[in-house]
Amino acid sequence: MKSYIQEQIQTYQEKNKQTARLLIKCPDKRGIVSAVTQFLHKNEANIIESNQYTTDPQDGRFFMRIEFESPHLPEAEATFREGFQPIAEQFDMSWDLTGAYDIKKTAIFVSKELHCLRELLLEWQSGDVITDIKLVVSNHEDCRELVESFNLPFYHIPANKNIRKQVEEQQLSLLEEYDIDLIVLARYMQILTPEFVAEQPFKIINIHHSFLPAFIGANPHKRAYERGVKLIGATSHYVTNDLDEGPIIEQDIMRVDHRDNVDDLKKMGRSIERSVLARAVKWHLEDRLIVHKNKTIVFK
Amino acid sequence: MKSYIQEQIQTYQEKNKQTARLLIKCPDKRGIVSAVTQFLHKNEANIIESNQYTTDPQDGRFFMRIEFESPHLPEAEATFREGFQPIAEQFDMSWDLTGAYDIKKTAIFVSKELHCLRELLLEWQSGDVITDIKLVVSNHEDCRELVESFNLPFYHIPANKNIRKQVEEQQLSLLEEYDIDLIVLARYMQILTPEFVAEQPFKIINIHHSFLPAFIGANPHKRAYERGVKLIGATSHYVTNDLDEGPIIEQDIMRVDHRDNVDDLKKMGRSIERSVLARAVKWHLEDRLIVHKNKTIVFK
Amino acid sequence: MKSYIQEQIQTYQEKNKQTARLLIKCPDKRGIVSAVTQFLHKNEANIIESNQYTTDPQDGRFFMRIEFESPHLPEAEATFREGFQPIAEQFDMSWDLTGAYDIKKTAIFVSKELHCLRELLLEWQSGDVITDIKLVVSNHEDCRELVESFNLPFYHIPANKNIRKQVEEQQLSLLEEYDIDLIVLARYMQILTPEFVAEQPFKIINIHHSFLPAFIGANPHKRAYERGVKLIGATSHYVTNDLDEGPIIEQDIMRVDHRDNVDDLKKMGRSIERSVLARAVKWHLEDRLIVHKNKTIVFK
Amino acid sequence: MKSYIQEQIQTYQEKNKQTARLLIKCPDKRGIVSAVTQFLHKNEANIIESNQYTTDPQDGRFFMRIEFESPHLPEAEATFREGFQPIAEQFDMSWDLTGAYDIKKTAIFVSKELHCLRELLLEWQSGDVITDIKLVVSNHEDCRELVESFNLPFYHIPANKNIRKQVEEQQLSLLEEYDIDLIVLARYMQILTPEFVAEQPFKIINIHHSFLPAFIGANPHKRAYERGVKLIGATSHYVTNDLDEGPIIEQDIMRVDHRDNVDDLKKMGRSIERSVLARAVKWHLEDRLIVHKNKTIVFK
Repeated sequence: MKSYIQEQIQTYQEKNKQTARLLIKCPDKRGIVSAVTQFLHKNEANIIESNQYTTDPQDGRFFMRIEFESPHLPEAEATFREGFQPIAEQFDMSWDLTGAYDIKKTAIFVSKELHCLRELLLEWQSGDVITDIKLVVSNHEDCRELVESFNLPFYHIPANKNIRKQVEEQQLSLLEEYDIDLIVLARYMQILTPEFVAEQPFKIINIHHSFLPAFIGANPHKRAYERGVKLIGATSHYVTNDLDEGPIIEQDIMRVDHRDNVDDLKKMGRSIERSVLARAVKWHLEDRLIVHKNKTIVFK
Repeated sequence: MKSYIQEQIQTYQEKNKQTARLLIKCPDKRGIVSAVTQFLHKNEANIIESNQYTTDPQDGRFFMRIEFESPHLPEAEATFREGFQPIAEQFDMSWDLTGAYDIKKTAIFVSKELHCLRELLLEWQSGDVITDIKLVVSNHEDCRELVESFNLPFYHIPANKNIRKQVEEQQLSLLEEYDIDLIVLARYMQILTPEFVAEQPFKIINIHHSFLPAFIGANPHKRAYERGVKLIGATSHYVTNDLDEGPIIEQDIMRVDHRDNVDDLKKMGRSIERSVLARAVKWHLEDRLIVHKNKTIVFK
Repeated sequence: MKSYIQEQIQTYQEKNKQTARLLIKCPDKRGIVSAVTQFLHKNEANIIESNQYTTDPQDGRFFMRIEFESPHLPEAEATFREGFQPIAEQFDMSWDLTGAYDIKKTAIFVSKELHCLRELLLEWQSGDVITDIKLVVSNHEDCRELVESFNLPFYHIPANKNIRKQVEEQQLSLLEEYDIDLIVLARYMQILTPEFVAEQPFKIINIHHSFLPAFIGANPHKRAYERGVKLIGATSHYVTNDLDEGPIIEQDIMRVDHRDNVDDLKKMGRSIERSVLARAVKWHLEDRLIVHKNKTIVFK
Repeated sequence: MKSYIQEQIQTYQEKNKQTARLLIKCPDKRGIVSAVTQFLHKNEANIIESNQYTTDPQDGRFFMRIEFESPHLPEAEATFREGFQPIAEQFDMSWDLTGAYDIKKTAIFVSKELHCLRELLLEWQSGDVITDIKLVVSNHEDCRELVESFNLPFYHIPANKNIRKQVEEQQLSLLEEYDIDLIVLARYMQILTPEFVAEQPFKIINIHHSFLPAFIGANPHKRAYERGVKLIGATSHYVTNDLDEGPIIEQDIMRVDHRDNVDDLKKMGRSIERSVLARAVKWHLEDRLIVHKNKTIVFK
């Protein structure tokens, strides 16, 4: 199976071999767009997609994502960065330039519920999620067979509250070893320490099985059942040190009724969790997400 | 306009002049459905719609709604009730028989936001909500013109925390005067006292402008904006003494994104609130709702 | 009621008194965005919202909508147009500049089904649709009372196939008299002649009660019922000379099931038709729609 | 992987070892429900779920699905059938009794697009679709590796218009060999002959990649793109001899916009096709579908 996936990734890279994305955050001021587009024009770049957003006047922040092609990429990436520096300084920008040709490296963490892992593998296999899945980590053995059937390295690291430090040390060394860009918690069900989270700012995406901020914490489906809600949901968010309080990336819901018991809600929830997480991961991989004030700007 | 509405109601009554609904709650036991349907069969009733639901074995409760036509209705309603009594006793039922021909009398309470009131009047006017709207009560004058353009009595009763008792006394005497069956809080924005609520068990329907239990209480749209949710919602529920904690009847959501500020959320929220409240009111008027353990069973 | 609406419109105009929208269509070329934003920058314009879209390379067309504020507006509108002319010529643009402060004048055509008319009046009354409704035309008397309760001129022009020419002459003279910018067919149910349509290119918005291209033509709900679809829909589109074939602006659907008969579908359809038409009209009024090859580009 | 799936199926069978479903079709008459429930009551059956539907008076057909448990099942299934026969005759019923403990045997036909196959295997693997997948047939080799990784027999039967007869002979002999109850066309893309279809009445489920009846036939996404629709859909239906005209089981849609080209529509469509087909298959396997006048009654 691996060879088929490699082929899809190569096709993607070939198609995007001169494509990059410029991400900008700065105070709102007249002339930004004009300066940026003039710069790209001078560098013979062709704008493929451009999105911008300005917060309300009190806050006064400007955000932009431009996807462009240039005949000088990827060779001249460094020259690009250098040339852009004066504009960035003029407007006091935080910014980033990422090549679409640079495939991001992903680690998936999972526990006993495998539906989100299955979805990611399936979307990856069919070329709908373009990333380099480097490894799958779990505190259980349940998914070993599945993971290995995709020729992916599987690491079983048993975990519990008392050995959190040791567990995370092992995980961190794997992340370093594989040079990981993105960690997906595909129903991992373990709380990460502030130290762990601090090392990967906005690089960890979680899926929570409720429409946050309703049912923060454990057993959301049981509590949804008891409250008698008519909708259940799922939320994908970046992980921060406040449990289930990180910037929301994507949410969706499904209609339920009085006949659905807790197990039904869990089953029905799976399909929302699968698709919500997959969308969030795709947007991250395509550099469509900017975090501002614990919220995400999603440039779809 | 009134005459057109009266016409619609008469058409409905004519069409449903022999239609009634039997609502049943009892411990689950073998033989209930058989006993009930045999009884209806003996009374020459024709079943139009039948719904049932049994909670899980631990709880063991049975619920049923049967809509039927009988050539003996409405004249023999009392005989029906009498004849059904032994079956009800045998199975330890709480039950009710309501004639579809008995149009329910409704009071609408509203504050300054008029979109829910407008929707109800519009749906009523077009014959999509069949009820007898007897009066509209508001703590403001804003909707007087609108209400009176429909030839409906409008009562302006200014309200605030300090005069709650006097306000509710006036309201209760109006409810009595008009013999009201259902009170719709169409964004009324005032908290009712436990005494008021206790007098109308499961007869007060409220619309809350969030997907409960998220954003209970005041300013849900502002808090939704600050949390950065990707969905906003609305919830219609029966009013109990726990604020925003009554049995949920209906909920819906709408997709929002980072560009939507608090005012946008409020505007977008209006259309969900309108439709969610209208659906809840319709189901109540058609006797499709049964409350059990602070949850609703909705027999659609 | 009229005075309240006038107030809302004035608030809107006040808020947008220096806001305009630039709409551009041209062959795709490097440097367009750079040139346009530089021009705006020189004219001290502040970009509020900017959207662009390029068709695929074969077609190679570029489209843009920029909403901006300038301290020189509205006085310097003519100077703006003049100054932009050389850029427009350089890139071979079709373009338009519209002031948000210029409220568009609307005529509504309706037949016997009033739900879409009611929705538009309601949204207009609450300030959610900003336009100047100048008149309502109908081939029936059913909506007279409703229209006149809003203090709007109502014109009853009976219509049928045989007198189409005379009917349209009367209508055209009203459109001219009131200097109408937009005609909304809110379930008008009469076919317009090619001559009539030709005089208002992309100025007539219709609502069709199916998800086009399914169930083109008459009785879509009856045909949907007979086909046993599980979704019914509504489609809002610009009117062209091909019946139900004009550029689609917006569509939506609702779930139905085997229990819903033709009348149920009609009833349920109303709420989709209402919201789909209202969205399409809003987008048109905000200059968010560009037509290209019988399709719409919607810059939301 | 197979052993894990077998375990899930055994758990299901154990839980449902005394559960059966009674499906009834007959002319509407007073007393049917009463007679049926009395019969079940006498046989100590406990009704778990009951659904009924009566067409409008002109058509006058009655449909029912009752799921029940009885301590005498499965041993007394034959006695049950015998005992029910007089009631069936009295009311002129077509009827069927199926044991939930009898796992249906399924064949999947697929071509080059594998997303629907992947979804079915994934849902099957996780115990969300309970069936015995006996074999996968394809006219291409693309899915062999995938199928065999699930330890399922894969049959490669190349197909084209000219050898349709021979191909179907091979397929029919496989269906007979494996005693197949349900054929799922998971994007099989080949037209079946009337003879083939005639042998499996309402046993073949297809997924079509449009919201039928829009875009019947080939290339629906290309045609949807050209028409500029704002929604794309998918439809699952029983196969009859009229191409894409069989009874619709389930449909769903997804929002698209002007930026989505044909390839985007295809990609986005996959996720709707996956879930629509999976739901249709589940309902069929749970005996929730009754066909009447080329439409389905879905007892959810």
